[in-house]
Amino acid sequence: METKNILIKNATLIADEIKKSSILIENDEIVEISNDLKFNDADEVIDASGKLVIPGLVNTHTHLSMTLMRGLADDMPLDTWLNDHIWPAEAELNGDYCYAGALLACAEMIKSGTTCFNDMYFFMDHVAKAVDESGMRGVLSHGMIDFGDETKRKNEFKETRRIIDKCHNSADGRIKVAYGPHSPYTCSQELLEEVKKEANKSGHRIHIHVSETQKEVSDSLESKGKRPFEYLSEIGFLGEEVTAAHAVWLSEDEISLIKNSQTKISHNPSSNMKLASGIAPVSKLLAEGASVSIGTDGTASNNNLDILEEMKITSLLQKVNTLDPSVLPAKEVYEMATINGAAAIGLEADIGTIEVGKKADMALLDIKTIRMTPFRNPMSHLVYSAQGGDVDTVICNGEVLMENKKLLTIDEAMVIEMAQNAAEEMLTKKAD
Amino acid sequence: METKNILIKNATLIADEIKKSSILIENDEIVEISNDLKFNDADEVIDASGKLVIPGLVNTHTHLSMTLMRGLADDMPLDTWLNDHIWPAEAELNGDYCYAGALLACAEMIKSGTTCFNDMYFFMDHVAKAVDESGMRGVLSHGMIDFGDETKRKNEFKETRRIIDKCHNSADGRIKVAYGPHSPYTCSQELLEEVKKEANKSGHRIHIHVSETQKEVSDSLESKGKRPFEYLSEIGFLGEEVTAAHAVWLSEDEISLIKNSQTKISHNPSSNMKLASGIAPVSKLLAEGASVSIGTDGTASNNNLDILEEMKITSLLQKVNTLDPSVLPAKEVYEMATINGAAAIGLEADIGTIEVGKKADMALLDIKTIRMTPFRNPMSHLVYSAQGGDVDTVICNGEVLMENKKLLTIDEAMVIEMAQNAAEEMLTKKAD
Ligand SMILES: [Zn+2]
Ligand SMILES: [Zn+2]
Repeated sequence: METKNILIKNATLIADEIKKSSILIENDEIVEISNDLKFNDADEVIDASGKLVIPGLVNTHTHLSMTLMRGLADDMPLDTWLNDHIWPAEAELNGDYCYAGALLACAEMIKSGTTCFNDMYFFMDHVAKAVDESGMRGVLSHGMIDFGDETKRKNEFKETRRIIDKCHNSADGRIKVAYGPHSPYTCSQELLEEVKKEANKSGHRIHIHVSETQKEVSDSLESKGKRPFEYLSEIGFLGEEVTAAHAVWLSEDEISLIKNSQTKISHNPSSNMKLASGIAPVSKLLAEGASVSIGTDGTASNNNLDILEEMKITSLLQKVNTLDPSVLPAKEVYEMATINGAAAIGLEADIGTIEVGKKADMALLDIKTIRMTPFRNPMSHLVYSAQGGDVDTVICNGEVLMENKKLLTIDEAMVIEMAQNAAEEMLTKKAD
Repeated sequence: METKNILIKNATLIADEIKKSSILIENDEIVEISNDLKFNDADEVIDASGKLVIPGLVNTHTHLSMTLMRGLADDMPLDTWLNDHIWPAEAELNGDYCYAGALLACAEMIKSGTTCFNDMYFFMDHVAKAVDESGMRGVLSHGMIDFGDETKRKNEFKETRRIIDKCHNSADGRIKVAYGPHSPYTCSQELLEEVKKEANKSGHRIHIHVSETQKEVSDSLESKGKRPFEYLSEIGFLGEEVTAAHAVWLSEDEISLIKNSQTKISHNPSSNMKLASGIAPVSKLLAEGASVSIGTDGTASNNNLDILEEMKITSLLQKVNTLDPSVLPAKEVYEMATINGAAAIGLEADIGTIEVGKKADMALLDIKTIRMTPFRNPMSHLVYSAQGGDVDTVICNGEVLMENKKLLTIDEAMVIEMAQNAAEEMLTKKAD
């Protein structure tokens, strides 16, 4: 490969104070950051005067293709929502629909400054195709559910291994594949133990839902005599390679188990609020030293994929829940959405900060906007004022995915039409 | 005045289902709505194919000029925030600064689909100048504080009457002036009673902060032996012409007092969350039949003025707080931000819905955007997916204030620079 350089000139780097710097990218990597950077041979120069540069945001729990179910069913109990709306729609999914939904999701994430995500769903090779085309970075997992059925279990492993063989380390290494056991209540102990064994052997990560609702905890106590994280700890499932989404209902003991096992938590405030699941004890988890990042969950329960919006809600929800305005200050939330997000997918050495030697994953936001005025405290403006739409330019793995709010890797009008058609067709089939 | 017509063609009108219509505006009024509207003499035709038309949103509690304090102080207790940061900055305010801050706020509100607001602050004739220029509709009140001091009290009435004389019904009737006693803990009983008497005599509305924090309630119990709304009820202050912001900590009795007196409540979820004030019992208030609308509060405690963001947070916060996902469904939240907002400022006969005979206050949002795809449930998309930046065109009082995301009444670059300079100058003076 020939060397390709991008020079980002005169940027304001995200920090507690206003600091200017230029950034030099060589191929997929950040090679120099300096306020006195001289380089005349860049293939591309981005004038970032008046722009704030942040690391690409990381969405650590989502279901991309569920964009097709956005607005399908709201304002109802989880059971009705799943049984009467989401699962019947999912029964009609196919690879083409999942591709369309995932490409729409990639477009939405790029537009709001997210460069990397942790996904769990179905037809994941079709999702991988969308991610590859989009230029984004992501960890994909096939959602495994066996309900104790051995045939189902075998098929889930078969599909997971197929996706690993086909997609792991594809797209110039931007795509990784993880194991995706859906949850401790939809997966048997056999499945969970086999996942743990295989994943550890091959070095893959694990992505799972745990303790989303009170009902999940009481069912677990009833059927297993243990709370979900206690159960997972006892069967040796927890560990630093595991990312558990939600973690809403936790005992003090479970917080210790999470911390001690270095299990990564993905906090999904909008989804937990919208489905009335509850408020995760994020400030406690962080105070105990656990690693907590931020996810949007799928758009059927959010209903968007905007990590900037999620950052604001993350902070505000903890403040009001603890009645302490000093918890989750802007900088801590910023870290949750960047370096903690990177850690939640095992990429903290590669992404999550703007640093020499790291991959060139970043987003540029306009400073001279109404919401950023007066511009005095970049961290505050980013977390409390900004929205996805303030993102102007996005770079992932050294490739410019959006410039001046225009997507470069995805045809926006085309993907909107394709997703609209896929969603309509899917529901027509369901109605048949 | 000559007749001026605007024809909005082929719009999708906000509703639970997708419905197409055209809207004819004559001067400041909506004169026809039909899916078969023939009119060839319009002075301006707006092709709204692919656009969702909603009533202009109403922000029922804010402090416009506080945009100058955006990001000045976050993540700290209310006392420190007020004493060490906000009040010292406010001590340096002048009419020019308030004008700059208010014009920035108007620009921000128009850009996010708000056409009308309820403001309380200082130098309100300067604020009125900004509002007049912006083309927006608003109710302005001078924030009155006497702490029991008679001289202060007299001056507050003098200033309020000055603002009424100068600004009430100005700007083609777009600007109204209300009485703005700050709160029951900063205003004496004499002030509150005099406000009530004068306002009732002259037909002006009243705008006040009540029961924002637990401390306010316990202080009130200690000093007056009554909770804030009990006290206000007892001195005969409550009534349908009163809009009380916050109303976070309420007893069952107080909820009844609010409902029976028809006092209007402005719910400010982001501010209450960010300052860790608490969660207002909005679903209970609504279930009891009280009128609740939505406000952003000032940007020092939010930190933006986006009612669409506030709508999502309003619904999600009530769902998670009650652990009931069916409370505050999208349509109810939509009504809070539109017709209930209109009622909170006494303008429910004039604005708050798209209806023949009402003022032409509306916002158009792009349907063909990623966040609105698949487009199937306008109410859901508006409340749960959309953000301020999705607003495309804004009309207030029959005048187009923004078209294709370009402000027509405010020079955006100019107001950003003016506000930045004002904010910097204000803080330099404070540091002196
Ligand atoms: Zn999920
Ligand atoms: Zn206020």
